Amino acid sequence: MGLLQKEKLQALIVVTNESNNKNVFYLSGFGGTTGVFVLSKKKAVLVVDGRYTARAKSEARGVTVVSPEQRSKDGGMSGYLRAAFRELNLKEGSKIGYEGMRIPVLIARSWSSTFPMKFIPTKNAVERLRQTKDTYEIKESMNAARATSRAFRDVMPRIRKGMTEQHVALLIEYALKKRGATGPSFETIVASGPNAAIPHHKTALRKLRAGDSVVIDFGGLFPSGYCSDITRTLFVPGGKPHQKLLDAYQVVLIAHKKAFDALRPGLMWKEYDRVARDYITKSGFGKHFTHGVGHSLGLDVHDPYDYVNNPFEAGTVLTDEPGIYIEGIGGVRIEDDIVITKTGAQKLSTAPYLSGTMAGEKKNSNSRFSSNSAKKGSRRIKSL
Amino acid sequence: MGLLQKEKLQALIVVTNESNNKNVFYLSGFGGTTGVFVLSKKKAVLVVDGRYTARAKSEARGVTVVSPEQRSKDGGMSGYLRAAFRELNLKEGSKIGYEGMRIPVLIARSWSSTFPMKFIPTKNAVERLRQTKDTYEIKESMNAARATSRAFRDVMPRIRKGMTEQHVALLIEYALKKRGATGPSFETIVASGPNAAIPHHKTALRKLRAGDSVVIDFGGLFPSGYCSDITRTLFVPGGKPHQKLLDAYQVVLIAHKKAFDALRPGLMWKEYDRVARDYITKSGFGKHFTHGVGHSLGLDVHDPYDYVNNPFEAGTVLTDEPGIYIEGIGGVRIEDDIVITKTGAQKLSTAPYLSGTMAGEKKNSNSRFSSNSAKKGSRRIKSL
Repeated sequence: MGLLQKEKLQALIVVTNESNNKNVFYLSGFGGTTGVFVLSKKKAVLVVDGRYTARAKSEARGVTVVSPEQRSKDGGMSGYLRAAFRELNLKEGSKIGYEGMRIPVLIARSWSSTFPMKFIPTKNAVERLRQTKDTYEIKESMNAARATSRAFRDVMPRIRKGMTEQHVALLIEYALKKRGATGPSFETIVASGPNAAIPHHKTALRKLRAGDSVVIDFGGLFPSGYCSDITRTLFVPGGKPHQKLLDAYQVVLIAHKKAFDALRPGLMWKEYDRVARDYITKSGFGKHFTHGVGHSLGLDVHDPYDYVNNPFEAGTVLTDEPGIYIEGIGGVRIEDDIVITKTGAQKLSTAPYLSGTMAGEKKNSNSRFSSNSAKKGSRRIKSL
Repeated sequence: MGLLQKEKLQALIVVTNESNNKNVFYLSGFGGTTGVFVLSKKKAVLVVDGRYTARAKSEARGVTVVSPEQRSKDGGMSGYLRAAFRELNLKEGSKIGYEGMRIPVLIARSWSSTFPMKFIPTKNAVERLRQTKDTYEIKESMNAARATSRAFRDVMPRIRKGMTEQHVALLIEYALKKRGATGPSFETIVASGPNAAIPHHKTALRKLRAGDSVVIDFGGLFPSGYCSDITRTLFVPGGKPHQKLLDAYQVVLIAHKKAFDALRPGLMWKEYDRVARDYITKSGFGKHFTHGVGHSLGLDVHDPYDYVNNPFEAGTVLTDEPGIYIEGIGGVRIEDDIVITKTGAQKLSTAPYLSGTMAGEKKNSNSRFSSNSAKKGSRRIKSL
C-alpha cells in the first residue's frame, strides 16, 4: 500500500474497461472489463455489476466485492464510486487518487461535483509498479516465452514456397493455442519478400517465393495474463536469398547479441538501444534500422514503462529486436524476450536462429536452424 | 463546421488511437490508429507519423496531411499539436476544443502548460454528429445488414445437432467474410441449450443437442467502416423444443414487431423500450427480459448515442432486440437493424424468422424459416 503513502492519499481509484483492464488485473486478479477497484489503507474493494459478481469473487482474492449503487448511462461511474466509498467508510474531504493518464477530463469533473472528496490525478502509479516483475511474473513470462518458442519450432519446418502469408499466420496461431495460449497477443505479422521491408506489414495473401526473407513476428497471451513477443526471420527454401539480406541477417544477429550482452541493472534504455544501433550503423545499414531496439513486456505486449528516466533493474522484462529493412528487397528482424537479472540478463525465449547453412536448400529444413543459445535461456532464474 | 460555431472555438482537436479511431474516421475518412485531427474554420489538418503518411493522403480527401514536429514517448502528443497549430496558423490565446470525455486529465494539463492556447473540453461533440446518419451512411448500413443477413442464410441450413457452438461461430464468420465483411464486428455469440439463457454467453465447446434453442448474435464490420448486428434464434432439428421456449419465441417475435411498429421520428428511447417490455411483461415473461430493447448502430456496434435526451429522427440507425432468458432451460432473442425514416422506420436486415412449422423436424431445414418481412426491408430508402 506504498501506492497511497507516497502520494498521501486516503484511497486510490483504478478503473477497468474494454480498452484497459490490466491495472485492475495486476492489483486484484480480476480480469473482467467493467469495474472499479478502490484501495484504501485498510482494505481493497472491487465494484462490479451483476454480470461479473461471481467471477470477481473467484478471481479477486482478499478483496471485498460489492455492487454499484445504481446504473448510470453517463459513463461517469458515480454509482460504482458511491458503493466503494461507503464500503471503505471514506469521510468528506478525503484525498482520493485516480489514474490521471486514463480518466477523461469531464469524468473527473463529474466526480468532483458529485462527491465531497478531493480527487487527485496520479501519474502512472500502477504502471510504475508494473515496470518491474516479481518472481511469479518472471516465471509466467518465461512460461509464455518458452511455449511460444515451441510453437515456432512446430511451424518452422512446414513453411514452404507457395503458402500465403495468412496461411503461415494461421499455422502459428494454431500452434500457439495448442501450446496453451488463449490467443495471439497481437495480430501475427508474416511479412514475405518485399513486404518484409515493412516493419509492421499487414499480413495478407502474398505467396511465399523461394529465397524470400520472411519476417515472422508473433506472440501469445497466456491464461496467466502474461504475453510473449518473438520475431524470427527465415529464408524460403528452394532459392538463393538476396546477398544483401544474407549480410543483413548476420549484422542483425550480432547486433541482437551485442545488445543482449550489454543488458544489466543500471543501464538506461537509450544506452541499450545505442549498442545495437552503433553496430548496425558501423556495418553500413544504419538508415535501414528504423525503429527502437525493443520494448517492455508483461501483461501488455507493450507494457507500460518509463523509457526515459528508468534504469533497468532485476525483474525488468523486455524485448531485444533490432531489424534491417531494405525497400523493394526484404528485411530481417530477430526478437527475443529477456529478463534483467541481478548480474546481467537472461533470455526467456528459446526459438532457434538460422544457422550458417541457412541458405542451404539441400539440407533438411530442420537443420536450417542453429540450436540458439537455448542453454542460456533454459537456466532457471537463480540470479534474481 | 458548425462544430466550432456552437462552442465558439477557433479549432477542435480530435484524436485517433487504438481504443477509438472512429471520430477521426467519421470526420476525415482516415482509418489509422495513431494521429491527431485538428479542424479550424478554414481548414482541416491531419497529423500522422511516417508509417501513416501515404495512407492518410489517400484516405483523408480534402484534408492537409502533415507530420509531427518531433516524436515524444510521453503520450502527450505535443509534437502532433505543434505541427497542426502551425499549419492552421493559430494565434496565442485561441480557444481550442478537445474531446472532454476522452482526453485524460494529465494530458490536457500538459497541453495547457505547453501551448499558449485556451483548451476547452467539449462533451461528445463528434459523437452527437454521429447519432444521425446521412444518406451515404444509411446506404452502407443497409449494405452491411443485407450482407450479414445473407451470411445467416448461408449457414442456417447447415446447423445440426452434435456441432459445437464454436463450429457454428466459425461458419458464421466464414460466411460473413465471404459476403464481404473484413471481420466480425464483435465476438460472435452462439449460445445453445442452457447457455442460451445467458444473454452474453461466451461461445465455447458445448455440442448442440436436438431441440435446443440456439441464440446466434453476430455482425460484420465492412470495408465502409459500418457495422451490422443481428440475432436469430433457432431450434436444433431432431428433437422437441421445451414448450416454454416455443411460447417465448412467439412472445419475443411479437414484442419485436410491436417495438418496430412503434418507431417513428420524435419517439424517445424509453418509450421504444417500453413497447417491447410491456408486451413481454403482459405475457408473463417480464422478469426474463433482462436487458434493453436495443442500441444505436453505426461505425461502432454500440454507436455513441444520448439515450436519455435525444428523440429519434430520420436517419437514426438502431437495433430492435427483445429477449427472454429462462435459467437452466434456454433463451430466445431476435434482433434486426433498423433505420428511422421520415414517417416511420425500415428494416435494414432481412434474415428470416422461424415460421410456424419451426419445430417440424420432418421438414427440409430451409423451410424452418419464414420469408421474414424481407419485402419491407428490401424497399429502397425513399422516405428519407
